[in-house]
Amino acid sequence: MTGSHAGLFGELFVDREMADAISDRALLHGMLGFEAMLARALEAESVAPQGTADAIAGQCDPDFYDIAELGRAATLAGNPAIPLVKALTARVAAVAPEQAKWVHFGATSQDVIDTALALKLKDIFYLFEARLTGIAALLEGLIESFGSAEIPGRTRMQSAIPITAGDRIRVWLAGVNQALETLEGVRNQNLILSLAGAAGTAEKYGPKIGNVRATLAQSLGLTVPGYVPHAARGRIADLGGWLSRVTGALGKIGQDVALMAQNELGEIGLSGGGGSSAMPHKQNPVRAEVLVSLARFNATQVAALHQSLIHEQERSGAAWTLEWMLLPQMVIAAGASTRLAAELLGSVERLGEG
Amino acid sequence: MTGSHAGLFGELFVDREMADAISDRALLHGMLGFEAMLARALEAESVAPQGTADAIAGQCDPDFYDIAELGRAATLAGNPAIPLVKALTARVAAVAPEQAKWVHFGATSQDVIDTALALKLKDIFYLFEARLTGIAALLEGLIESFGSAEIPGRTRMQSAIPITAGDRIRVWLAGVNQALETLEGVRNQNLILSLAGAAGTAEKYGPKIGNVRATLAQSLGLTVPGYVPHAARGRIADLGGWLSRVTGALGKIGQDVALMAQNELGEIGLSGGGGSSAMPHKQNPVRAEVLVSLARFNATQVAALHQSLIHEQERSGAAWTLEWMLLPQMVIAAGASTRLAAELLGSVERLGEG
Amino acid sequence: MTGSHAGLFGELFVDREMADAISDRALLHGMLGFEAMLARALEAESVAPQGTADAIAGQCDPDFYDIAELGRAATLAGNPAIPLVKALTARVAAVAPEQAKWVHFGATSQDVIDTALALKLKDIFYLFEARLTGIAALLEGLIESFGSAEIPGRTRMQSAIPITAGDRIRVWLAGVNQALETLEGVRNQNLILSLAGAAGTAEKYGPKIGNVRATLAQSLGLTVPGYVPHAARGRIADLGGWLSRVTGALGKIGQDVALMAQNELGEIGLSGGGGSSAMPHKQNPVRAEVLVSLARFNATQVAALHQSLIHEQERSGAAWTLEWMLLPQMVIAAGASTRLAAELLGSVERLGEG
Amino acid sequence: MTGSHAGLFGELFVDREMADAISDRALLHGMLGFEAMLARALEAESVAPQGTADAIAGQCDPDFYDIAELGRAATLAGNPAIPLVKALTARVAAVAPEQAKWVHFGATSQDVIDTALALKLKDIFYLFEARLTGIAALLEGLIESFGSAEIPGRTRMQSAIPITAGDRIRVWLAGVNQALETLEGVRNQNLILSLAGAAGTAEKYGPKIGNVRATLAQSLGLTVPGYVPHAARGRIADLGGWLSRVTGALGKIGQDVALMAQNELGEIGLSGGGGSSAMPHKQNPVRAEVLVSLARFNATQVAALHQSLIHEQERSGAAWTLEWMLLPQMVIAAGASTRLAAELLGSVERLGEG
Repeated sequence: MTGSHAGLFGELFVDREMADAISDRALLHGMLGFEAMLARALEAESVAPQGTADAIAGQCDPDFYDIAELGRAATLAGNPAIPLVKALTARVAAVAPEQAKWVHFGATSQDVIDTALALKLKDIFYLFEARLTGIAALLEGLIESFGSAEIPGRTRMQSAIPITAGDRIRVWLAGVNQALETLEGVRNQNLILSLAGAAGTAEKYGPKIGNVRATLAQSLGLTVPGYVPHAARGRIADLGGWLSRVTGALGKIGQDVALMAQNELGEIGLSGGGGSSAMPHKQNPVRAEVLVSLARFNATQVAALHQSLIHEQERSGAAWTLEWMLLPQMVIAAGASTRLAAELLGSVERLGEG
Repeated sequence: MTGSHAGLFGELFVDREMADAISDRALLHGMLGFEAMLARALEAESVAPQGTADAIAGQCDPDFYDIAELGRAATLAGNPAIPLVKALTARVAAVAPEQAKWVHFGATSQDVIDTALALKLKDIFYLFEARLTGIAALLEGLIESFGSAEIPGRTRMQSAIPITAGDRIRVWLAGVNQALETLEGVRNQNLILSLAGAAGTAEKYGPKIGNVRATLAQSLGLTVPGYVPHAARGRIADLGGWLSRVTGALGKIGQDVALMAQNELGEIGLSGGGGSSAMPHKQNPVRAEVLVSLARFNATQVAALHQSLIHEQERSGAAWTLEWMLLPQMVIAAGASTRLAAELLGSVERLGEG
Repeated sequence: MTGSHAGLFGELFVDREMADAISDRALLHGMLGFEAMLARALEAESVAPQGTADAIAGQCDPDFYDIAELGRAATLAGNPAIPLVKALTARVAAVAPEQAKWVHFGATSQDVIDTALALKLKDIFYLFEARLTGIAALLEGLIESFGSAEIPGRTRMQSAIPITAGDRIRVWLAGVNQALETLEGVRNQNLILSLAGAAGTAEKYGPKIGNVRATLAQSLGLTVPGYVPHAARGRIADLGGWLSRVTGALGKIGQDVALMAQNELGEIGLSGGGGSSAMPHKQNPVRAEVLVSLARFNATQVAALHQSLIHEQERSGAAWTLEWMLLPQMVIAAGASTRLAAELLGSVERLGEG
Repeated sequence: MTGSHAGLFGELFVDREMADAISDRALLHGMLGFEAMLARALEAESVAPQGTADAIAGQCDPDFYDIAELGRAATLAGNPAIPLVKALTARVAAVAPEQAKWVHFGATSQDVIDTALALKLKDIFYLFEARLTGIAALLEGLIESFGSAEIPGRTRMQSAIPITAGDRIRVWLAGVNQALETLEGVRNQNLILSLAGAAGTAEKYGPKIGNVRATLAQSLGLTVPGYVPHAARGRIADLGGWLSRVTGALGKIGQDVALMAQNELGEIGLSGGGGSSAMPHKQNPVRAEVLVSLARFNATQVAALHQSLIHEQERSGAAWTLEWMLLPQMVIAAGASTRLAAELLGSVERLGEG
């Protein structure tokens, strides 16, 4: 339920780079990467015979597959792994019939889709790390440039005692730094291999399961979780919580800036920014406002991810589908938020009395 | 933050027809329809001189405008009305310079965007009315075909006393009929003209405001609200509530069907439906599950629309932007839900003991 | 999960009168009222023999029952109707053994609890109607006193064009009036009799069900719904939506007042209000702020009531329990909001430039 | 907005022990503990003269203060710290007039209330640790007793392949263990001293601020945060996320048990549990259902805590008040969830085929 939305609202509340990183195309890459590397692991651990890996990996080029066609089948099947595995198997069977049975061997839809999500998240976490680091640097730059400017400290919406702009910006920076500091934990939780089979018991691999998992995880750059991940979704809820902490930390900055930019306060000078269709002279703090919108948006979505913790039995279609609807748009909203925050902070020309 | 998502997930949780109806293209149509009809009303009420209407309406063909370009400008301006009005004014000025000043006269961005939303909703409400009517007919058909089949009434997840399938389906029908019955109220609330100007006072029209509003509203097929609509957003919250009642009523059906389809119960026979990448024999009640996901999705979003009730001062960029992020996806989710419900109910081959 | 909270936070975000109206004691009254009137209806419609009504009604004095004891049993039973019916039956059996079997005849826990909720809501709707009417009058008084004062219209947090205080207050009034206008619809939906029996089929009453319902509904001042209400919960979701529209409309006022009260703007003068533990001279717009908190609180809760639309099968313990946790606190929050709004508006000493 | 609710619903969805730990009385203890230890730190660090500590600490007995009276004042003041500090100052002034000025010296309401919350959380985290450890032990016991029983693995609500009861329980255990493992992080984030003064600059302490904080934190058993905590609320959002992960992990168990307890499946045997007012023979899996309700409840609340991340300026009354309304009830819901889960798991008499 997302999109890069090259539409009337442009990139007002979306983010092209993040939308690409969380896109269906990226998911397809990840799914095929999983299948190719699974075949390699099966061969390496002597579950499948020699030649399996090459036969299967040779058909794992995303360009071989038509996303729209897979989507049509996914609408009925309930997820895109089923038609993709079918199409991949057919391609392998056409060139190496005896190896077709090793495609997706022992795995289930949730293994391939959840692992592909982890592969996407690797890139996404790098993007966020870079962007948040950039925002932190911008904030430190503002402290250097304007940190000693005096502004009224404001509590409960009333002027309290004088503080400096630096005092306020350091609180903004704390929110950003905390997102950076907690990133490692969320990363560790989420960058895991899912290989647990139809009902979580990975029964097809027999005693080789440990080796298959270790080999596959290493080749994908993921870790092997100490639990069956299908129905234990805490890591996804935490991921959502982290994304909402990012938008929340930046939304706090946006709210403060929008308040500082009020005409009677004039505590901030911004270049660029929004016009008005009725009042051409007016300069609206658009980015600051949208940071607030994005924060309230993600704050809301996190609740639905927590609803998905009630993931019944071994695998729940209802809870899992709900995650698919939520996570991409939370990532994109957080992406837009980091972009807008960087733009907003980069546009600050003055802090403190005008 | 929506899309028709012709992607890997196909139309599993989106809906093409509804996505078109709520699309940016539809918004552009509505915005230009507003501007053209505003010019006609201005001329009809002698606010603007003769010739204004034709000069402006002649430039209101959506094909004259490039959505992507408008979007780029909207990213900065904060909304797409500003660049559209600018582009429209330039086109008018090129052919009838003296009339350019009447473009968008007296109106503000929120007038044109909120009214364009109302115009989109007209179509959308028709779609929902038709779909819900169809679902009600399917339910009545099921009552006719299978209504007398005995099933265990189940309360608190335990078998209680025997009831008939008809007893259960009538409760399903009640949810659908209530959505139909309350549609009229939500329609009346939302299909309104917004023409209140920069800060809600419609000051540019002077004493002619009543006539301009009446003429414009009539030409657009909308009503004139008895209040200034910019910052009073209750109607939008109720619209979200109605959309969530739709997905909730259908989600209850989905939950019941998923429970009835359990192997040991076998109280329902469905044709089609979902496969499994690991177990080809398995038939998953995909549509039933996704109805639950869509219900939980919209239930969550309605909270964010209610957050937007705190719409500060005369017009709030933050609260308004949040609505833009939410409403389209709620419409699309409800669209997917009505489509899936119709498909699911149409696939019922048996109700009651297998 | 509510309380009148005569604690450290006093009535900052609760409301004693509304807490009483939604209290467990009020529920007990309603439950016993239902049982007494059900017995009368059974006798009047010749389902039960003469003497039943008096025998049962004579034991329906709330003082005969110990709430704490009922609560202990409810913890195990899952609802308080089960122990109450048991205790009532025992009391009737002690004095009129042959009539004990008519206690709660044909009804289920959800009938008595949902109907008792409707009885509580009757009082609660009166309270809200009176309070909102009072707030509307206060707003009209402010328009009369200060309506012509000029203030800057503010859009997107920036000064736009001059408006009058009256222009702004009329938008506040619109929110309140809409809550009043929609009250009738929510009232009609919710003030219903629930009498549908163990699994919704009211099977114990045979052909007399229509008469029993009509008689019972009339004696309780409720209407007979055209559907089985156990698992069709749209009315409860709408009730929550209405409560959140109330807190949202008043939260918008609170947000505006908090902004107007900023020192540099000084567009409002308030008597009373909050101090500071660190800065004794400071006057915080506490009520205005808490109106915002209450609006955000109820906006959130409404999502959970919508989750309960997925009310599985004939009666769901999980969805129903969730309603019990939410509705009382939403009523109390809306109660606090109406009280604080009245206090806040009553404390306005000046509007417009200071 | 919480309570131990010794009412009609007993402890169905509340928890007495947790309600006590998060109660207003516990808050008062914490606030007075803060004030007493602050005085000691001021004296130890030679900010205040000798004798200050004893003079102030001698008046910090909670029994000296009337919660209801403080509450009445808090309703106006916006928080209970203001009247408490006033009352404490008056008591100190009565016995040691010259020391009265050192009461609450340099601190603000948010310092004392946020620190008192941290002190309450210390106890609360111990309670949760003990309870979750107990639940983990119960789950391990079930694995030992019934782990080898075969049950159908169920995915997307359909029977998949056979698994053992142990396979399923190990997923339940993973959720509980993850809550235990992440407890340390949430504890570290939240058990902090808040001592930042009126607007976050701790200006009254001059260069001694570091020493005062270190001494005070040590005496309270808290840590000194590396940032100004007033307006950086990520730790509170994460605390809510953790509480919802607890209820979510246990809600998943509840959902599974409710499904296993269906009559046709009969995969679990439970002693005790819920009756029915209409069908005395029926055994409802009340605890399992309520675990689901509590999970959906907390999942919703976490969204509102994330809304409070938008904590404007140096201290926000609106965002802070919202936290007060949410956190206690989330703690109590998680408390009820842990108690019910222990009872439910302790009542398991059989797992696997009946």
